[in-house]
Amino acid sequence: MYNFPSKLVENAVNELSKLPGIGKKTALRLVLHMLKEENNYSTAIGESLIRLRKEITYCTSCHNISDSETCLICGNPQRDHGVICVVEDVRDVMAIENTNQYRGIYHILGGIISPMDGIGPGDLTIQSLIDKVSKGEVKEVIMALSATMEGDTTNFYIYKKLKEFNITITTIARGIAIGDDLEYTDEVTLGRSLINRTPYENSLVR
Amino acid sequence: MYNFPSKLVENAVNELSKLPGIGKKTALRLVLHMLKEENNYSTAIGESLIRLRKEITYCTSCHNISDSETCLICGNPQRDHGVICVVEDVRDVMAIENTNQYRGIYHILGGIISPMDGIGPGDLTIQSLIDKVSKGEVKEVIMALSATMEGDTTNFYIYKKLKEFNITITTIARGIAIGDDLEYTDEVTLGRSLINRTPYENSLVR
Repeated sequence: MYNFPSKLVENAVNELSKLPGIGKKTALRLVLHMLKEENNYSTAIGESLIRLRKEITYCTSCHNISDSETCLICGNPQRDHGVICVVEDVRDVMAIENTNQYRGIYHILGGIISPMDGIGPGDLTIQSLIDKVSKGEVKEVIMALSATMEGDTTNFYIYKKLKEFNITITTIARGIAIGDDLEYTDEVTLGRSLINRTPYENSLVR
Repeated sequence: MYNFPSKLVENAVNELSKLPGIGKKTALRLVLHMLKEENNYSTAIGESLIRLRKEITYCTSCHNISDSETCLICGNPQRDHGVICVVEDVRDVMAIENTNQYRGIYHILGGIISPMDGIGPGDLTIQSLIDKVSKGEVKEVIMALSATMEGDTTNFYIYKKLKEFNITITTIARGIAIGDDLEYTDEVTLGRSLINRTPYENSLVR
């Protein structure tokens, strides 16, 4: 393979291609695009990435990414601080906030128990969740993790740790997605949706 | 849409999603990936992008990206400086160098005439090519642009500018790619490959 004509380009391509889903060809395309744009274009991108890691802070209560010590959700007195929704990362918070159906607070685990990737309970913020619950002001913990093997494992681990406290532990409903055809739904989901059937009045989409 | 929990994240996502082929969702995925990695990971990426644009230099002769005033190809006395291959950008140079079939030098246009994108002849390095040819040391100019409408337009424009000089102007051969099936080749390519048929001896892949 012919070498890059410039060490600067080679370096930028190597750095960008470390990102997930970006290979050498894509990285070179991005680098050439940046070189064609105005001077401050790639500088702005570069500076935003450097500042990102240097200045980022996390909410001390829910561990969400935040610009202040307490995030906007934890700092909002109108939210129900007695209900905690446990999620994997900030994308899940954004997805749930977009539903406009939730008024409690969150707890961000920062990942999911996955022995295959070398992620154990100690790498997550589970102890901090237990500490929060042990203060006695929490009434309900809603587990909102992915419906995967790793999600189920994490649910079970946290359930075992929290069951000694006098709180309700729930998981978000698994079932047929709205708009989905019954005949194309897999058996496990269909089976679960029968077991966890809900009163008709609750099924009306508000 | 729920806002990002942090201005830093929002800024990084906005900057990254300016890149071609990267939308907001991908940008957020990349940002969260960078936050999970070690501290110097995103810093290294950011710094490589800032240095890229600040320190980049171009070969004064062929306009290729280069770390020095004259690129390694133009500065190589063993290359044939009487043959110039005209290409769109550095990726084409890399592709041609990888064939090991070319010993001449290059001229990088920095784009292609494309009225749709607002790119005219003045935005490219065509005048510099004419200046180089007018010095009288060039014997042949090989046009190696994409076989598209824009490529053909650029070929024609440069041909008109160069035909007054006593040089050979050629284009790279259009035809059926090696390994391709005749029956799946489009009519235009097949027609061209008949018109521009080559002596059998030349067709043997060396």
